[in-house]
Amino acid sequence: MHKKNDNENNGFEKVNQIDLKKDMKVSELTEEMSKSGVMGAGRIAKAVEIYKDMKKNNAAIFFGLAGAMVPGGMKNIIIDLIEKGYISVLVSTGANLTHDVIEALGYSHLQGKSDADDAELRKKGIDRIYDSFMPSKVYVAMEKFFNQHFDELSRQKNIKDFLWKLGSLLPDDRQNKSILKTCFAHKVPLFCPAIADSGIGLMIWSNIAQNKSTDINAFDDLKEIIDIAWTNKVKGVVYIGGGVPKNYIQQAMQFSTPAQFGIQITMDRPEHGGSSGAELREGISWGKISEKGKFTDVICDATIALPLIAASVFVE
Amino acid sequence: MHKKNDNENNGFEKVNQIDLKKDMKVSELTEEMSKSGVMGAGRIAKAVEIYKDMKKNNAAIFFGLAGAMVPGGMKNIIIDLIEKGYISVLVSTGANLTHDVIEALGYSHLQGKSDADDAELRKKGIDRIYDSFMPSKVYVAMEKFFNQHFDELSRQKNIKDFLWKLGSLLPDDRQNKSILKTCFAHKVPLFCPAIADSGIGLMIWSNIAQNKSTDINAFDDLKEIIDIAWTNKVKGVVYIGGGVPKNYIQQAMQFSTPAQFGIQITMDRPEHGGSSGAELREGISWGKISEKGKFTDVICDATIALPLIAASVFVE
Amino acid sequence: MHKKNDNENNGFEKVNQIDLKKDMKVSELTEEMSKSGVMGAGRIAKAVEIYKDMKKNNAAIFFGLAGAMVPGGMKNIIIDLIEKGYISVLVSTGANLTHDVIEALGYSHLQGKSDADDAELRKKGIDRIYDSFMPSKVYVAMEKFFNQHFDELSRQKNIKDFLWKLGSLLPDDRQNKSILKTCFAHKVPLFCPAIADSGIGLMIWSNIAQNKSTDINAFDDLKEIIDIAWTNKVKGVVYIGGGVPKNYIQQAMQFSTPAQFGIQITMDRPEHGGSSGAELREGISWGKISEKGKFTDVICDATIALPLIAASVFVE
Amino acid sequence: MHKKNDNENNGFEKVNQIDLKKDMKVSELTEEMSKSGVMGAGRIAKAVEIYKDMKKNNAAIFFGLAGAMVPGGMKNIIIDLIEKGYISVLVSTGANLTHDVIEALGYSHLQGKSDADDAELRKKGIDRIYDSFMPSKVYVAMEKFFNQHFDELSRQKNIKDFLWKLGSLLPDDRQNKSILKTCFAHKVPLFCPAIADSGIGLMIWSNIAQNKSTDINAFDDLKEIIDIAWTNKVKGVVYIGGGVPKNYIQQAMQFSTPAQFGIQITMDRPEHGGSSGAELREGISWGKISEKGKFTDVICDATIALPLIAASVFVE
Repeated sequence: MHKKNDNENNGFEKVNQIDLKKDMKVSELTEEMSKSGVMGAGRIAKAVEIYKDMKKNNAAIFFGLAGAMVPGGMKNIIIDLIEKGYISVLVSTGANLTHDVIEALGYSHLQGKSDADDAELRKKGIDRIYDSFMPSKVYVAMEKFFNQHFDELSRQKNIKDFLWKLGSLLPDDRQNKSILKTCFAHKVPLFCPAIADSGIGLMIWSNIAQNKSTDINAFDDLKEIIDIAWTNKVKGVVYIGGGVPKNYIQQAMQFSTPAQFGIQITMDRPEHGGSSGAELREGISWGKISEKGKFTDVICDATIALPLIAASVFVE
Repeated sequence: MHKKNDNENNGFEKVNQIDLKKDMKVSELTEEMSKSGVMGAGRIAKAVEIYKDMKKNNAAIFFGLAGAMVPGGMKNIIIDLIEKGYISVLVSTGANLTHDVIEALGYSHLQGKSDADDAELRKKGIDRIYDSFMPSKVYVAMEKFFNQHFDELSRQKNIKDFLWKLGSLLPDDRQNKSILKTCFAHKVPLFCPAIADSGIGLMIWSNIAQNKSTDINAFDDLKEIIDIAWTNKVKGVVYIGGGVPKNYIQQAMQFSTPAQFGIQITMDRPEHGGSSGAELREGISWGKISEKGKFTDVICDATIALPLIAASVFVE
Repeated sequence: MHKKNDNENNGFEKVNQIDLKKDMKVSELTEEMSKSGVMGAGRIAKAVEIYKDMKKNNAAIFFGLAGAMVPGGMKNIIIDLIEKGYISVLVSTGANLTHDVIEALGYSHLQGKSDADDAELRKKGIDRIYDSFMPSKVYVAMEKFFNQHFDELSRQKNIKDFLWKLGSLLPDDRQNKSILKTCFAHKVPLFCPAIADSGIGLMIWSNIAQNKSTDINAFDDLKEIIDIAWTNKVKGVVYIGGGVPKNYIQQAMQFSTPAQFGIQITMDRPEHGGSSGAELREGISWGKISEKGKFTDVICDATIALPLIAASVFVE
Repeated sequence: MHKKNDNENNGFEKVNQIDLKKDMKVSELTEEMSKSGVMGAGRIAKAVEIYKDMKKNNAAIFFGLAGAMVPGGMKNIIIDLIEKGYISVLVSTGANLTHDVIEALGYSHLQGKSDADDAELRKKGIDRIYDSFMPSKVYVAMEKFFNQHFDELSRQKNIKDFLWKLGSLLPDDRQNKSILKTCFAHKVPLFCPAIADSGIGLMIWSNIAQNKSTDINAFDDLKEIIDIAWTNKVKGVVYIGGGVPKNYIQQAMQFSTPAQFGIQITMDRPEHGGSSGAELREGISWGKISEKGKFTDVICDATIALPLIAASVFVE
């Protein structure tokens, strides 16, 4: 509980200088950040508070996942969030799901260097994602897996069912838990409108190129996500990065009812007008975010901010 | 032609201080920037040079369009680029195509303010895209248009054909030229893997919600874009922003042959690992960009950089 | 002249899509940007308008110069701005003045590469400023110059007089015009509070280390810049980057009267609270910027934005 | 200790997915980040490791403090770092020292809002630093303090002595510990080349304006910081933000011997060439950073990164 300030402070709380201590817990650090309450630290603390509020209020939590989160070491945190009920609906880029499949099939990403010689990497068969490396041989394993399961996968009628089916087919290995399998197991709807734009899409293409076909419709998922958004009147949105995941959730809010809670973690900036850097506040004008909602924009690399926030939220 | 420097400069060109003059042409300014050759100015100049080289070498030019480019005033430049042969294949976000439809239907975006009261805007029926405003009544006009043409549109088998059909149906008005119609008219393949994630997608949804259906497949376009990438051995890529458009083109290069020319204009940064901020150089490791390719990353708001570059390219 | 919009647009101007044309002038391009009026392009256009307004209103123009502007090719533009009356008071980092001295002594910066091997450069005697290279032998020439003139320079009582004296001593060479000499010649007050933090400072240090001394006071310039700020009731501020130059001008406004016009060009961002990324608007609360002032924050690499703006301003 | 990976991983470490746990300590979280090892999280972990290494190797630690660190809640962390021996030499902006004086005199910064109406704040006498507010009445208290102590302060011959004297004069209050007093008490040299560019400078000006004078030399500190840099052969640099503090330390390294350890925390970016965003690696070419040094650039809001790093370092 923050001590109220005297009248001299015009009704504002003090910026309490952050105090560290030995063996400090993450939740204690973010609590200190809540007492300072300003700049990036203040926003981290506010995100912790809002995420707890979403849960406390039984909000349906729509979670948008963009950026290199699986190659960046965030996979198990996402899985924890699903298992602990902090994600009700997941919308992802195709890339994160592809990297999730790759790890599920037994491969790891590697700690590389961002200033590596890319031509040398090419010769060695290593694909670079900033400083996270991936052996290109993963495509052989993926191709084998997708060719083997093409019939089951291609029969699905929409992308969500395709992804749940994919999750159901992945190996069930405690060492290699996957986002896809966890969504399937917990019946968390998983959307990926741009699934064609990914390694998974390419695996489907390699079958299509051999005159096979799929029944998977480009638009049909919209009905399901908007239905969920309509049915749930208390809603939160959490955006890791922007891109399609953010926008797809935002438009589901726009065409149902606005979200009361919101967290956005991004390094992009608003001034150029793109959706990825747009402040959550902008969503009020569209009816995507509630005028009376609690929300915060955390301007931070998600591989730093998400662990900090999640570790503080999980305490309770 | 730049004067070569003497031996004292270790073989490097001088940074010539940029000289301005009265009534200077844009192409003269970017030529001065090429003589300075460093920082952002040097990259603008290099982008001009590379774009000219793409054309001179008859490269197939794959153009990725993300960000708020139509609300940001870039529509006619994109149309010019298509008409003059500087775009061979266009991959766009759904949002830019939605805003293109809106203008084609006779509406304009408006010069607003980024610090407007969003709750007030909501009451006035204005949607905010940073400082570009859009009357929300455009949805009524869009709905009317899409309901009227739903049968024709829904019969298309893939997204590209859907978009060409859409382009063919838009009014042909010299005052309201559209990207969609221009692509259709010039037979420039137009891809939008995440079309469901857009106002256009929502218009289709409103029909699906009334138990209508579409035949549009989520994956089938992959075959066409990769075929084009295979057929054309000399290729350039131009990325305005990142997101799906960039990645979709990059993977078409990866699964065919790498691009020899590349330009990227973005404000995102590479360190967090996301694809939107990734340097083009990274693509060499994946086989997306040729090791011997000419490419540059312009770190700039595209509404500043694109007009500068395009105005300099069009001179010839 | 922009055409007024009809009532349907709620009193807002249209975002006119930017039209390019053959042999377009820079001023015509920024005029088009003024008609689109949004995002980065709109701010470039607004900066042009505001800079013209400063001149038209005979404002005293305080110009803050930070960032690698001389190594980045902006020197002659700064000199033009001084000569044409667009800079009344210049506040600079020590680095820009040091690089100005270096060029005045006959050396050039070189077009290098940002991914060069820095250990190799070290061996070759090349100092790197991102992708602008500088031969480290310039320090020999600088040392010779400063040792030769130490007596005259060290007798000055404040930094401004020190810098004018320095300007007066630099070679008068049409090929190597300098910011320092131009300020001296045009009697434009030149301030550099952190002069000790620069190559020039180091040249003074090498004399101090040999038991010589200077009379130059750390605080005395404050009186002069605040007097100028007091005397001039119509004022504009132009900030290239942030740092000490911006803050030194801002505090002169705070302790006199607020500026009516303002332009800031920066790539830094506001959320972390540092002065360099702070929006000009923030200055209203401090009395640094007039509540009724005209100002704009251009989020852009200054080596792109400054030439665009200056070339458009110089037309008149 | 990280488990070594098998041959299949080309000698690279795995990116271990970060695992959270209940009641996790900050040091455990950054240890997990070290096991993932990539993107921002990997850099945070590397910064922790390097900072510990500096201490273990008895490096002289030069700490550059820029940005709004006192208004942002970082004051006590800086004080802890000094007291625990993690800062050997401090170089600060004038602003941070001014805000430090303000808190020492009994005032607090306040938790405000970044979208406040600045004209309203002006009327209420509140100065805004992004979302940290400061009552403008602090200037009255400062003026009283500086007028009272002007004679003692003005007699100092250089800025460092001026600042130590200032520290000695500040109230000794456990509730309001100050950076200035802590530096004085621990005999940690404190430099601020641009001291005139600050509220402290303005307090001196108000006395100068009344025809008082000071003896404080602008250049003399250079001898002391370069002597310290010469004497200590094992050195580390830590930069919070860029600006004068970073550059002043960097040039002391350049004119002595390069630093073996380096940490930089910044949100600025390198491409525009300014020193604040320049990667530490660049310093190798100048002889500021050792070719064999251990260093990392953390791209993060310092109010997030610094507490995380410091809390992890303090464990030992």
